[in-house]
Amino acid sequence: MGGRRESVSRRPLLVLIIGIPFFYSLRMKGRCHGTQIIMQDTHAWSGRFSEPVSELVKKYTASVTFDKRLAEFDIEGSLAHAAMLNRVGVLSDEDLAAIRQGMAGLLEDIRQGRFEWRLDLEDVHMNIERRLTDLIGDAGKRLHTGRSRNDQVATDIRLWLRDAVDGIVLLVTDLQRALLDLAEEHAATVMPGFTHLQVAQPVTFGHHLLAYVEMLARDKGRLTDCRRRINHLPLGAAALAGTTFPIDRHYTAELLGFDAVCHNSLDAVSDRDFAIEFTAAASLVMTHLSRLSEELILWMSPRVGFIDIADRFCTGSSIMPQKKNPDVPELVRGKTGRVNGNLVALLTLMKSQPLAYNKDNQEDKEPLFDTVDTLVDTLRIYADMMRGITVKADAMREAVLQGFATATDLADYLVKKGLPFRDSHEVVARAVRHAEGQGCDLADLPLGVLQGFSGLVGEDVYRVLTPEGSLAQRNHVGGTAVERVRKEITRHRKSLAVPHL
Amino acid sequence: MGGRRESVSRRPLLVLIIGIPFFYSLRMKGRCHGTQIIMQDTHAWSGRFSEPVSELVKKYTASVTFDKRLAEFDIEGSLAHAAMLNRVGVLSDEDLAAIRQGMAGLLEDIRQGRFEWRLDLEDVHMNIERRLTDLIGDAGKRLHTGRSRNDQVATDIRLWLRDAVDGIVLLVTDLQRALLDLAEEHAATVMPGFTHLQVAQPVTFGHHLLAYVEMLARDKGRLTDCRRRINHLPLGAAALAGTTFPIDRHYTAELLGFDAVCHNSLDAVSDRDFAIEFTAAASLVMTHLSRLSEELILWMSPRVGFIDIADRFCTGSSIMPQKKNPDVPELVRGKTGRVNGNLVALLTLMKSQPLAYNKDNQEDKEPLFDTVDTLVDTLRIYADMMRGITVKADAMREAVLQGFATATDLADYLVKKGLPFRDSHEVVARAVRHAEGQGCDLADLPLGVLQGFSGLVGEDVYRVLTPEGSLAQRNHVGGTAVERVRKEITRHRKSLAVPHL
Amino acid sequence: MGGRRESVSRRPLLVLIIGIPFFYSLRMKGRCHGTQIIMQDTHAWSGRFSEPVSELVKKYTASVTFDKRLAEFDIEGSLAHAAMLNRVGVLSDEDLAAIRQGMAGLLEDIRQGRFEWRLDLEDVHMNIERRLTDLIGDAGKRLHTGRSRNDQVATDIRLWLRDAVDGIVLLVTDLQRALLDLAEEHAATVMPGFTHLQVAQPVTFGHHLLAYVEMLARDKGRLTDCRRRINHLPLGAAALAGTTFPIDRHYTAELLGFDAVCHNSLDAVSDRDFAIEFTAAASLVMTHLSRLSEELILWMSPRVGFIDIADRFCTGSSIMPQKKNPDVPELVRGKTGRVNGNLVALLTLMKSQPLAYNKDNQEDKEPLFDTVDTLVDTLRIYADMMRGITVKADAMREAVLQGFATATDLADYLVKKGLPFRDSHEVVARAVRHAEGQGCDLADLPLGVLQGFSGLVGEDVYRVLTPEGSLAQRNHVGGTAVERVRKEITRHRKSLAVPHL
Amino acid sequence: MGGRRESVSRRPLLVLIIGIPFFYSLRMKGRCHGTQIIMQDTHAWSGRFSEPVSELVKKYTASVTFDKRLAEFDIEGSLAHAAMLNRVGVLSDEDLAAIRQGMAGLLEDIRQGRFEWRLDLEDVHMNIERRLTDLIGDAGKRLHTGRSRNDQVATDIRLWLRDAVDGIVLLVTDLQRALLDLAEEHAATVMPGFTHLQVAQPVTFGHHLLAYVEMLARDKGRLTDCRRRINHLPLGAAALAGTTFPIDRHYTAELLGFDAVCHNSLDAVSDRDFAIEFTAAASLVMTHLSRLSEELILWMSPRVGFIDIADRFCTGSSIMPQKKNPDVPELVRGKTGRVNGNLVALLTLMKSQPLAYNKDNQEDKEPLFDTVDTLVDTLRIYADMMRGITVKADAMREAVLQGFATATDLADYLVKKGLPFRDSHEVVARAVRHAEGQGCDLADLPLGVLQGFSGLVGEDVYRVLTPEGSLAQRNHVGGTAVERVRKEITRHRKSLAVPHL
Repeated sequence: MGGRRESVSRRPLLVLIIGIPFFYSLRMKGRCHGTQIIMQDTHAWSGRFSEPVSELVKKYTASVTFDKRLAEFDIEGSLAHAAMLNRVGVLSDEDLAAIRQGMAGLLEDIRQGRFEWRLDLEDVHMNIERRLTDLIGDAGKRLHTGRSRNDQVATDIRLWLRDAVDGIVLLVTDLQRALLDLAEEHAATVMPGFTHLQVAQPVTFGHHLLAYVEMLARDKGRLTDCRRRINHLPLGAAALAGTTFPIDRHYTAELLGFDAVCHNSLDAVSDRDFAIEFTAAASLVMTHLSRLSEELILWMSPRVGFIDIADRFCTGSSIMPQKKNPDVPELVRGKTGRVNGNLVALLTLMKSQPLAYNKDNQEDKEPLFDTVDTLVDTLRIYADMMRGITVKADAMREAVLQGFATATDLADYLVKKGLPFRDSHEVVARAVRHAEGQGCDLADLPLGVLQGFSGLVGEDVYRVLTPEGSLAQRNHVGGTAVERVRKEITRHRKSLAVPHL
Repeated sequence: MGGRRESVSRRPLLVLIIGIPFFYSLRMKGRCHGTQIIMQDTHAWSGRFSEPVSELVKKYTASVTFDKRLAEFDIEGSLAHAAMLNRVGVLSDEDLAAIRQGMAGLLEDIRQGRFEWRLDLEDVHMNIERRLTDLIGDAGKRLHTGRSRNDQVATDIRLWLRDAVDGIVLLVTDLQRALLDLAEEHAATVMPGFTHLQVAQPVTFGHHLLAYVEMLARDKGRLTDCRRRINHLPLGAAALAGTTFPIDRHYTAELLGFDAVCHNSLDAVSDRDFAIEFTAAASLVMTHLSRLSEELILWMSPRVGFIDIADRFCTGSSIMPQKKNPDVPELVRGKTGRVNGNLVALLTLMKSQPLAYNKDNQEDKEPLFDTVDTLVDTLRIYADMMRGITVKADAMREAVLQGFATATDLADYLVKKGLPFRDSHEVVARAVRHAEGQGCDLADLPLGVLQGFSGLVGEDVYRVLTPEGSLAQRNHVGGTAVERVRKEITRHRKSLAVPHL
Repeated sequence: MGGRRESVSRRPLLVLIIGIPFFYSLRMKGRCHGTQIIMQDTHAWSGRFSEPVSELVKKYTASVTFDKRLAEFDIEGSLAHAAMLNRVGVLSDEDLAAIRQGMAGLLEDIRQGRFEWRLDLEDVHMNIERRLTDLIGDAGKRLHTGRSRNDQVATDIRLWLRDAVDGIVLLVTDLQRALLDLAEEHAATVMPGFTHLQVAQPVTFGHHLLAYVEMLARDKGRLTDCRRRINHLPLGAAALAGTTFPIDRHYTAELLGFDAVCHNSLDAVSDRDFAIEFTAAASLVMTHLSRLSEELILWMSPRVGFIDIADRFCTGSSIMPQKKNPDVPELVRGKTGRVNGNLVALLTLMKSQPLAYNKDNQEDKEPLFDTVDTLVDTLRIYADMMRGITVKADAMREAVLQGFATATDLADYLVKKGLPFRDSHEVVARAVRHAEGQGCDLADLPLGVLQGFSGLVGEDVYRVLTPEGSLAQRNHVGGTAVERVRKEITRHRKSLAVPHL
Repeated sequence: MGGRRESVSRRPLLVLIIGIPFFYSLRMKGRCHGTQIIMQDTHAWSGRFSEPVSELVKKYTASVTFDKRLAEFDIEGSLAHAAMLNRVGVLSDEDLAAIRQGMAGLLEDIRQGRFEWRLDLEDVHMNIERRLTDLIGDAGKRLHTGRSRNDQVATDIRLWLRDAVDGIVLLVTDLQRALLDLAEEHAATVMPGFTHLQVAQPVTFGHHLLAYVEMLARDKGRLTDCRRRINHLPLGAAALAGTTFPIDRHYTAELLGFDAVCHNSLDAVSDRDFAIEFTAAASLVMTHLSRLSEELILWMSPRVGFIDIADRFCTGSSIMPQKKNPDVPELVRGKTGRVNGNLVALLTLMKSQPLAYNKDNQEDKEPLFDTVDTLVDTLRIYADMMRGITVKADAMREAVLQGFATATDLADYLVKKGLPFRDSHEVVARAVRHAEGQGCDLADLPLGVLQGFSGLVGEDVYRVLTPEGSLAQRNHVGGTAVERVRKEITRHRKSLAVPHL
């Protein structure tokens, strides 16, 4: 056919337009990473080597493309280190003053985006030190006295992560507040409690939301515990063995707000426990949000119809004009994999590494940065989104009546009349089967029919067979009675009022 | 060829002997699991169903093959639940007495291995309840009043895991003691400190071991923090919504030694955070031991030859008569993967689960059990093994001299004479290159040659170029000076003397 | 209060009954593992050692508790090895005959459960060799000529896994058949196709099920590709370097049905790629089934109500008499984590292992065994379960009308009348918004109203607005038209008829 | 103390300079991502919504920041789609010509970096379509006829990944060549073969390297198998159910070089198996390179001293002037975790997703991109690095003599003289123990002493006790005899000469 022949003649056109995609994609990648990074040829350690490092190796081993993110913390650490060196008499007052002045300008350059990051200087540390030396001369060369990049980077990450944890705890708290507000509004809104996605027993929507407030409270506990272990100072371990200068590590720790110093130099430079512990805690945060997301998506599905998510959190379809999709919770669910993956990356990284520092550890940063970014973005958007939820209370109440939700109440009723629980369970199972056959709820069965299953049934039985009757009776700590839900909200609000850190 | 033809005639023989392996392996498996588990046909919930559960489904869904391990804790929980029901007036004194008596006998049966676990009764809970009812009648049927298997199993696991954590913390402490003993003996034994497996600076073997004591101390911190979150009582949440009986959850918590009650019933039955948090902490323990194992294996390799591991921790080869292999550390290294895998299993398990309880959660137990077993076995054998290490101090000292380990000391020396650190670093790099060319150590270069690199060098330079001189100067918190190592050992011993929990 | 005091007096009772749980659990564990395994004191390699291996080490390093599962394959491999040794003149005819006779008896003992596995003999290989030697004397001692346990175990696992893969492919095929039967029955049953769990466009239930038939077809492709890489013979690599005996590896390969021999001895004993590749393929099988499980659970939830799962695949609740829970799909969903965890365990295990064999590799077996068991059990039960699904076609059709499922059809209709697609999409979006405001479907809007949105609308529009009209038009390869679904079923049935291996 | 007081006054300075780091880090992040991305306010699907999407949501849900990398493949797919629409009569010749012309210009803009990517247009698809429409008017609006972004993105990724796989296979081949060159040079260089890092038997360095050539050959096999499953066309599945236009999917497939079309529309848009399968294959590549990296690092450690890595692949230390660190292999080892993490991310992502497309899937791209980048960079640098290895043959030979490497040869020798292997093994074990006590090798024991262990020993024994004698005898397929190693190199070179795809 002509069409087929035409296709043959058309293929070259495609190739012509498209070119050689693979080499293109290689090129693209280099370009993306390289934009603001200048490459030159000076290394701080070149004296020992007989040939320069190849360009490929420079790109492969350099970390400045991502660790420049630590710049402010690197400067903070250097300032504290310089102050300590001065205090113990290793650095003169003039040098300290010069370093402070140089760093102030340098910091401004970085904040204004004017700083030129150089790939050949490998990392954030050497970039800053070199620039400082260019600005202030020999004083800059004296800054690295008594430290190494091994303890320097460990200090930078801890400072950065401590700050990130503090921010995340605030964001978790804000999400808890959003949940509490919604829970309060719906403290008495009846919905089916599910197990196995089958209707189990009536709960209130407020009670359901409080389950997530609890999870997030545990998350904060884990983050706070982790922060304590982050907050130890590695600086002073130098490369791995400490230094011959008479350093005062407690003073540096005090300046930087660390609770303690790391007590073993080899451990100080090789420890990445804190990154793993944090990422594990982050995985749990995301796991909790993946569960809530799954529920939001289900609840918004038309057959369930329990809630609506505000339009501003949804997107449409390029082809189906009617679609309104819960993109945000879906992405959150998906991003759980990302954080779990980061955790595995870090655990794999540290497995079997001999002491002390190995270059492998440079791979700790990207998973950690990505985990923090994912958490920060997700928590912020989630609190916002929860404030835009519309609850369809009618649909929720209707659903309670679709699954014999008060069967357990009937069983408990019979137990209170004297039947052992196991026997009562059997009696009610038979009643349910009968009602199912009739296509009605237990509450719709006439008294005589119910009494046919057990002579213990009296007229008061109908009181326990309504959702509201069922709720009201579960009035103990942790129960779903409306009064109890309100008490829990109050308890949580009080605990949130206390600053967490 | 005859040989080929022969092979054809021989194949049937093989097949004859071997049979149909796959179906065999299917059979084998069933047999392994099934040995002590009896299958019959009664379920507690059969009243609602129109057909019995298939045998395949019974095997697939039953958990008794592994959760029978919780039996003692299940009984402990039931006894506390019964005592509470009695206290609030739901269970008579006679029933309580009968339950206690029945449970005592039952427990004895379990401990003596006389208890018959029945697969058709699904799990440890129904097996025990059914047997109890067989023994004591209606009182047994009343035990399940106001609870569900959902809150019961959550309580059992928490009791079991709390107990396991306490045991693990003791085992970690014992390993720390073994490390401290060895560290004390070798507080002054010089060895090369490595970074990138290249000789970096001299340290002492004792100092090196203390790095692991630090890691294990953090591990205990994480386990203890996790224990606090384990130690909340789910019982009282019933299926998911609490119960209509007037339960006193604080009383049950007190009887079982829980610090608090879970404050939301939906969360109480669906929460498995504690299992994940524990497994993450366990992954870090194993990661630390994988690092030490890697080092032991390296150190015992003949080219390195720093240590010997006692014969009783090694195995040989079936073919190579000369072999003595460090099997134990290798297995420990390998088992790190196992625990990381368990962590991924649990995280994947919980991802996106809607509230409240889903059957997925039954899959929490085996990874958790396996993680505890791996940790317990590994920690016990490790403490033992560390007590059987022979240190070859001569080889360690010899190795210090193979990598210009005191080059940094020379650089520091020049800084103290006034050279900025960066310039000093360059000077020493050139000296190292020269010495390397000469095939000698820095300490072997004549004074004149050293002075050729910098006029600041004086006769006192040789004092800092010996390993001992290098060590002695690193006398600050975290440093490797012998005196400092001894102080750290004392500090650790004191903290171990305090009971941890 | 009296109650509180009473509690104090009651606690000792609990403790008395319960004892010291942790040591108990340690004991329990040993007991579980140890039941059938005898411990004695002879090792094949003891000549080089000055002290016996400790009991703890024996238990920790022994693999016989789990690798005895390889017994039949170990014997198969040994018989082939012996036949080869005889063929090349290393083993006499008498020795070969004795080995065959001994193995036949030994195999029978194993199959009858009479074989006594001894922990002190470490593994399945030494247990069998020792027993063989006890039975037939020196001939048994000659069997290990020219091989090592390193190449022996690699051969055993490959034989075992090849067999397992063949069985699994058959089970996947059976599940495909079950899906095809259900798909055929419902080739024309209308249901809503979902994206984002929002109603998207009408599809047929048969079409939906075929998506899973496709996934499983890819799974089989992966398993078959993996089988090719499994089916290479490591035997002959001996410990790591080959052997000095004039072995004929191609002959052994032929006897054991291997396609080829491993071409490098170091690689042969250290390679576990096949285990990882298989487990990755298994993770995808489980991922697919986790998706179908999620759907079954959703579809069976009362608000959705699309299907019912036969009672024999469901379980009830110990407290809620009305419950019928889809336990099997929930467990399948949960077991996905287990297999993912095994994959991570294996990848972590192999990371950074130097060549050739290390004891770490012993940890490959349990994850692999568990993965195969999980797949076999899950696939068997799944095929069965799919044959017990009841479809509620009315509910499915009703659901199609709840989400403007034919909006895209209206957009396509306008495109065919000349409107560019993007403009058409906008027009329909406005119409949907109007209909939503009216609380009706697009098909319920009067012609005049529809024409108000676009003058291109004619009377024929209603034909494309019904679910059946929508389906009928999607009649291309991969589309959901009933005719097309039937064609696909036929295509699949044909491909299943061809034996896969 | 004055110092302490001073510190208090100095803290504000730090704070002053540093500012509020957390909010800064939030800001920074936004800035990094946002540079070239313009934000405006038009969405293709806005007609159905009552409020605009929030800025936070736009950033969270937009994928253009990373999926713009697919641009060329998106254009390629669109051109093929347009050609097909024209062929079946849905798109006019004029429209097709306009689309081609527009795309050509647009592609040039993208390649020149002139294209303005707009965040409010969400993704690469809408950015390109919108720009095309701006350039050519209504023809651009007609391009999306009969497709959806769901099938479009699936097509783009497959095109991109196919291209990446082809490139990776070439890079693997290049690394194999580098290994073969080195292996050829050292086909006869004796080194100790290790098991358990203990000296096992002599091998040649060439033989050792060939193990990695084998691993990489399997890697190529897996990648090629995966490519077959990638190379199916999803386009035509539209949103999830196919389209009402009379599309010719086989024609589109032909134009794009796909082997086949996806046969089920729901599967076509939701399948991400290929991404997972590829990443699993990539994990194995990295696992292999992590093993080689571990060995390079060990071999370059001064105590082992088997090799040197060229200076251009190493880096130094900021503090220790003598250091030359094998950074590249260390980073490769570390990056294994990264790829394993990506695999876990993707598996977690897909677990339990209901059909068909969900927004979760947008999370597939970053792990996939990162995996490809990691592999491409690592393979390129690795081939280069292997070409810069210096082998220290003397040290290797010396090491062979440090572990009784020929003990097995002695055992085999005795077997050939008639002793059963097990007995021979015992005899040699005793001889080794004796030699160890004497501090000498087996070859150093006088004949009389050797005969004391077994009367079967003759003068010819010394021939088998040298490394060269040991090697020469292992001359079978897979063995380490020099001749055999050379044959294997030839075999590999031949197979590499055949183009792989």
